[in-house]
Amino acid sequence: MAAAAAARHRTLDFLLGATADCNAVLKGLQPIFQQQRMTETIHSWEDHGYLATYTNKNGSFATLRIYPHGLVSVDLQSYNDDMKGRDKIDHILNKIEERMKELFQGSIRRVKRLPAIVRGDAIDRYWPTADGRLVEYDIDEVVYDEDSSFQNIKILHSKQFGNILILSGDVKSDLAYTKAIMGSGKEDYTGKEVLILGGGDGGILYEIVKLKPKMVTMVEIDQLVIDGCRKYMRKTCGDVLDNLKGECYQVLIEDCIPVLKRYAKEGRKFDYVINDLTAVPISTSPEEDSTWEFLHLILDLSMKVLKQDGKYFTQGNCINLTEALTLYEEQLGKLYCPVEFSKEVVCVPSYMELWVFYTVWKKRTEI
Amino acid sequence: MAAAAAARHRTLDFLLGATADCNAVLKGLQPIFQQQRMTETIHSWEDHGYLATYTNKNGSFATLRIYPHGLVSVDLQSYNDDMKGRDKIDHILNKIEERMKELFQGSIRRVKRLPAIVRGDAIDRYWPTADGRLVEYDIDEVVYDEDSSFQNIKILHSKQFGNILILSGDVKSDLAYTKAIMGSGKEDYTGKEVLILGGGDGGILYEIVKLKPKMVTMVEIDQLVIDGCRKYMRKTCGDVLDNLKGECYQVLIEDCIPVLKRYAKEGRKFDYVINDLTAVPISTSPEEDSTWEFLHLILDLSMKVLKQDGKYFTQGNCINLTEALTLYEEQLGKLYCPVEFSKEVVCVPSYMELWVFYTVWKKRTEI
Repeated sequence: MAAAAAARHRTLDFLLGATADCNAVLKGLQPIFQQQRMTETIHSWEDHGYLATYTNKNGSFATLRIYPHGLVSVDLQSYNDDMKGRDKIDHILNKIEERMKELFQGSIRRVKRLPAIVRGDAIDRYWPTADGRLVEYDIDEVVYDEDSSFQNIKILHSKQFGNILILSGDVKSDLAYTKAIMGSGKEDYTGKEVLILGGGDGGILYEIVKLKPKMVTMVEIDQLVIDGCRKYMRKTCGDVLDNLKGECYQVLIEDCIPVLKRYAKEGRKFDYVINDLTAVPISTSPEEDSTWEFLHLILDLSMKVLKQDGKYFTQGNCINLTEALTLYEEQLGKLYCPVEFSKEVVCVPSYMELWVFYTVWKKRTEI
Repeated sequence: MAAAAAARHRTLDFLLGATADCNAVLKGLQPIFQQQRMTETIHSWEDHGYLATYTNKNGSFATLRIYPHGLVSVDLQSYNDDMKGRDKIDHILNKIEERMKELFQGSIRRVKRLPAIVRGDAIDRYWPTADGRLVEYDIDEVVYDEDSSFQNIKILHSKQFGNILILSGDVKSDLAYTKAIMGSGKEDYTGKEVLILGGGDGGILYEIVKLKPKMVTMVEIDQLVIDGCRKYMRKTCGDVLDNLKGECYQVLIEDCIPVLKRYAKEGRKFDYVINDLTAVPISTSPEEDSTWEFLHLILDLSMKVLKQDGKYFTQGNCINLTEALTLYEEQLGKLYCPVEFSKEVVCVPSYMELWVFYTVWKKRTEI
């Protein structure tokens, strides 16, 4: 296997207060790249300004794109830099910034230099939010990385958050999440029958078992999630995954749909059903997306195994995905039995966005 | 002034499981760019692989960098895209991904496509964390943008968080922050004398005034911060900034150093001093950095105006900046009087990182 091959990509943008004299910018900045003995190639458009490309003997390269409407963007990519190499690049970017400020004397609306984007590193630090924003995590170690037949399972170490679980690119597991999906501390689980759908990191199970329930059944499809979390997420799951059976709980490694169907047929009922499977699908065409169908099926079956005064807890999605959340709420009106619901917005620190949680219950029939 | 000129920069990276046959990658991907009628320029290194640059008539361009160690990175920058243009770019990236998967048949360790980086937009969404990570906020409006003689003051609207205050690039103001710097709800402010250093958004003042203190004095240097927040941060400051004097508070628009010196000389004492000025400096050479000197001076003066059983509250910094925090704690050992301290880690949602807060008090002398 190749050694970790990481490139550092720097960007520096100038938003000008007026249209740019492309030629003046090019002429002004050229000497900086020439000083680095970089080889220049220039492409010019009739109406679209310039692209200058600079290559360095050591394999690094830069692009300078001058848009006539008043945007100048510089990219600088280098490979396997040491600290000295990084300082050198900062030095070049500083020079460019100084030169641009000389050229435009106070008429630059914004200078923006982003933190280096690290590309192709062994440790991937970029895990976008559910609403598609670019977020860099403080990951410093890959603890576990396995492909199961269902998903990619990663456990990564975050400096702030400790080990975090990432399933097919989505960050999971955070005590704030677990508490919210359990009803934010307002429920009495003592002596109750609880069904957890998913929940492979063991967090919900661990927290509920502490509360002396009668029986908790957790149905998780993916043995490899449990294996990874038992070993590396012990702050989340404690010792609860060491055995698949405890005094007041059992873990079934199964697809939850047939289990729910079986329970429904047997007439088994739970005080709480906690759906920890997936967030509300982002796709906003339920008719075309089978995940919505899946979600509807789970909801319907869950209602069938829920006691008349039971509660169903589930995550929604990021608060910004208003359309998807509205669609979800519409789905709640289409179940086999009438339900009511409430929602709560919670900050889940490791998600880097505010998250919506739902409580659903069967509508009380008037007597 | 030029219209907002935004470029969208897409990246797509392939981390290979082995060294790359650079020529095969180039030959494999060329047809995709040629189909777009893009003009190609190739630079090859003896030991460092290829850089291919592609320019399109419409002003967009792509770079394809093939590193022999096993990294292939594609950049695609386009200007003022409509949705159709974006779909087209996604289509090109999909093609590249498909082709790479054909070429390498399961030996690709990672395919990474980041959300588009928007460059030079009128609304800047990128506000890195204190520990230097790249974070994109859900900003959709610039509400206020002024340069005072002290700093740049921005109030931006976040879809999740509402209006947020950004002073010289640092995100400020969040109810979680305000509560933490007030002692996390464990203090009784009734009938107390309170001094707030900074606090221009009015958040701390507003929350304390609700608690029936005897007198709160807030010393903020920057009138423009107060002006902006009074108008656009009313969820934070309520009506407390409408007048600089209220029944139990006053706001001084002054540099806090001379005010502290005056109070110290007069022998004025407070039950609480809340330092909302700045975070602990990130620089780790206190001897070379005047912000450390400033911080030390503020601390010393604050202790002088603090009652014997009073408390001093302040923010530290991001939990990841352990060195800076350690240095700060060392500073606490160098004040004119012996002090003790405790610290607390709090999730401040809009910071996107965990934040450390300090409580400092004068050491009780044994009798």
